[in-house]
Amino acid sequence: MTDVNNDHLVQSSDPKHPANLIPDLCRRFYNWGWVTGTGGGTSIRRGDHIFIAPSGVQKEMMEPNNIFVLEFPTPKYPPSDRKYIRKPLELKPSACTPLFLAAFERGAGCCIHTHSQWAVLVTLLVERELGAEGSFEISNIEQIKGIPKGKGQGMLGFFDTLRIPIIENTAHEEDLTAGLEKAMEENPDTYAVLVRRHGIYVWGDDVVKAKTQCESLDYLFQLAVEMHKLGLPWVKPQ
Amino acid sequence: MTDVNNDHLVQSSDPKHPANLIPDLCRRFYNWGWVTGTGGGTSIRRGDHIFIAPSGVQKEMMEPNNIFVLEFPTPKYPPSDRKYIRKPLELKPSACTPLFLAAFERGAGCCIHTHSQWAVLVTLLVERELGAEGSFEISNIEQIKGIPKGKGQGMLGFFDTLRIPIIENTAHEEDLTAGLEKAMEENPDTYAVLVRRHGIYVWGDDVVKAKTQCESLDYLFQLAVEMHKLGLPWVKPQ
Amino acid sequence: MTDVNNDHLVQSSDPKHPANLIPDLCRRFYNWGWVTGTGGGTSIRRGDHIFIAPSGVQKEMMEPNNIFVLEFPTPKYPPSDRKYIRKPLELKPSACTPLFLAAFERGAGCCIHTHSQWAVLVTLLVERELGAEGSFEISNIEQIKGIPKGKGQGMLGFFDTLRIPIIENTAHEEDLTAGLEKAMEENPDTYAVLVRRHGIYVWGDDVVKAKTQCESLDYLFQLAVEMHKLGLPWVKPQ
Amino acid sequence: MTDVNNDHLVQSSDPKHPANLIPDLCRRFYNWGWVTGTGGGTSIRRGDHIFIAPSGVQKEMMEPNNIFVLEFPTPKYPPSDRKYIRKPLELKPSACTPLFLAAFERGAGCCIHTHSQWAVLVTLLVERELGAEGSFEISNIEQIKGIPKGKGQGMLGFFDTLRIPIIENTAHEEDLTAGLEKAMEENPDTYAVLVRRHGIYVWGDDVVKAKTQCESLDYLFQLAVEMHKLGLPWVKPQ
Repeated sequence: MTDVNNDHLVQSSDPKHPANLIPDLCRRFYNWGWVTGTGGGTSIRRGDHIFIAPSGVQKEMMEPNNIFVLEFPTPKYPPSDRKYIRKPLELKPSACTPLFLAAFERGAGCCIHTHSQWAVLVTLLVERELGAEGSFEISNIEQIKGIPKGKGQGMLGFFDTLRIPIIENTAHEEDLTAGLEKAMEENPDTYAVLVRRHGIYVWGDDVVKAKTQCESLDYLFQLAVEMHKLGLPWVKPQ
Repeated sequence: MTDVNNDHLVQSSDPKHPANLIPDLCRRFYNWGWVTGTGGGTSIRRGDHIFIAPSGVQKEMMEPNNIFVLEFPTPKYPPSDRKYIRKPLELKPSACTPLFLAAFERGAGCCIHTHSQWAVLVTLLVERELGAEGSFEISNIEQIKGIPKGKGQGMLGFFDTLRIPIIENTAHEEDLTAGLEKAMEENPDTYAVLVRRHGIYVWGDDVVKAKTQCESLDYLFQLAVEMHKLGLPWVKPQ
Repeated sequence: MTDVNNDHLVQSSDPKHPANLIPDLCRRFYNWGWVTGTGGGTSIRRGDHIFIAPSGVQKEMMEPNNIFVLEFPTPKYPPSDRKYIRKPLELKPSACTPLFLAAFERGAGCCIHTHSQWAVLVTLLVERELGAEGSFEISNIEQIKGIPKGKGQGMLGFFDTLRIPIIENTAHEEDLTAGLEKAMEENPDTYAVLVRRHGIYVWGDDVVKAKTQCESLDYLFQLAVEMHKLGLPWVKPQ
Repeated sequence: MTDVNNDHLVQSSDPKHPANLIPDLCRRFYNWGWVTGTGGGTSIRRGDHIFIAPSGVQKEMMEPNNIFVLEFPTPKYPPSDRKYIRKPLELKPSACTPLFLAAFERGAGCCIHTHSQWAVLVTLLVERELGAEGSFEISNIEQIKGIPKGKGQGMLGFFDTLRIPIIENTAHEEDLTAGLEKAMEENPDTYAVLVRRHGIYVWGDDVVKAKTQCESLDYLFQLAVEMHKLGLPWVKPQ
């Protein structure tokens, strides 16, 4: 764990620089109710640099100089081995760091973590209806076409069934990594994993894809909760 | 399909120029949750020019130079015959293009496509209550007066029943055109067609009419879903 | 009906001038979903001038030069007798004009009309539970203290029952006036009248009171709908 | 009760000065629906100064010069003994003043009072399910980790049960103080007290903690109401 303060890595006049994009995205996510109360987070990879939002900061008030920069690749564990090349001295790195790294190791360019209530509610409904092994499934809704079928396979079609795996939550966020990686291995085509009673991790090849996939998924979770209230099944019966 | 880049067609300091209005409208629609995750779209006709938002772009971040311009009239099919007079080189035209053209061929000045969850939910409720042939009907709600009775016939009255036809979704958005045109022919007075499990197409004589009609319809769909939850019928029993 | 164009009456650099306040209020009300699709409206009295928003204009895009000015007092009927001292030539005065005048004749300084869905839903729930004669009643909710007991009587207390009369809607908005005035006479202490399947008229001694009373009422209507969904009674059983 | 007008106490170019923060926070809380219709309020302690929002002001329009400043400590009762060192002449101090003081006397740096509908609804649901003695309890939801276990004890864990006491409302806000203080004494670890049919008081060691704890609690109340609608228990059965 180094202590260098490479401030130039987070200073740019380009609004699309990761150090500017992360605060901008967090402000937007806050307004959707995804990251209130310091919950959730966002990380972007650019080349061999990982930009990460700090822990415990008000997400809508974040500033570029709050951003951590890690060299990539970097060991996930132990935390002390992670190669920080820029650290705001007064802040702690996000507890989501190893989870974001797991996505980057699989080729993601951006990873988003939200505490969306719709995500939490679908994990509870799935557990009650299908038990702990169940996953979230929905079909025949246009917005499904906003989610990729898998790496290099194009997008899901309207008649396809979208399936998002659900893992159990753990006491400490960093301990989620094993469960997340297992779900990633068992579901090599997924771009998202739900965490029961917690929220969701969504990633994508780049920032735009991660963000729009996160929006499409949240749309589907909200719709699914409303469908459940109205007695409408999520997967269209044949 | 031409490749000309008539940039001047999308450059104007007038906020009411279509190339400025489309990004402005999309930003507003995004905030209502109508076009998140790149879903939905908007198109405006001005004289013999059709301005269309591109495909797959984050709707709240659109810029005038992302806008396509088509000569009107233009063939709907095959896509390669459409007369583009301005194309942003790095973008694809919206898959909604033939659907927007169908509205313009019937005299519309603006056409809006949303993935509103309220619209999707009413299509599901109608299917369950009335079967595949049912349409959305509501009466005796003041906001109905925001919807025209039909071309040149003034607005619907409070005691009238608003009726919006519903068509089935297709695997590919462009394949919706036949269904949309059939619904337009069978319902010559309608200014909107719902698409099951997908959203809605709304058009109007000009931008203001299309936008305010879209708002009034969405208000009615949201109200209808809440009425259903409360056990209140949509059409007032006589 | 005069045609004079006293533009100076709507030109002021004071943000609290009625011609600036009305567009500002309408923009806020639009964001709450109270006046989408050109529905609803607002009017302010200052001395012997009544400032009124026009009919059929997008409420969030209104500008000071869209505002009508009437001399007060003025006949409510026939419309042609109303003493307009400033008229935007291309616009029509709001159909709510006689309803706003009815409030001003009773001493109001500002009158707000919304199509709030919560207001519409409570009128439907009251009709089903209590019949056409029922009014909206709620007690033992802190926000009730935001509503006056009646002219010069201070505010309602926490243990008081707030009662808002409901009138039936009519085909044409101007025809509501008789019903509204009857409700005002029968309920001399009320600062609001609900209109079944339509919305609400709320007024107050000045702009701030009308706006904050309208907010408090809408809060109570939304709460009441949620309470109904959860099986909780609106008036606390003794 | 003095009448001095120490305007310099509320004039600062620092956005983190309490006189600037309170209007900024109130504007944000208004947009969440927590302080509409002049309801709710916020107070900040800095050293031996207490900054308090006035009574009956539109919360989203507050300005630094509307802020009261009290010397701290100061007697809670009678109101005339409170040592105001800055009073806007035309305004009344918040009726929440003694309640805010109760939190400051226990070491808080900021206290927030909202009329959140989710808070009101959970107080009603708890009363119906558990009677007047019940408190709000929820477990196994990640966002619980946004709430401290108690002074100097770190944050609650995922498997812990969050418990927020509920007190009965009173006719006058200042009369709540005895109940609030009793709940504080009986629940020395709590950072919040719900008020039945009214809202919530949340405090924290500083502004950021009070605000983010208030957001986390409101997230949990909203989730709890939705869970109840879906038949999901708040505390996970063992």
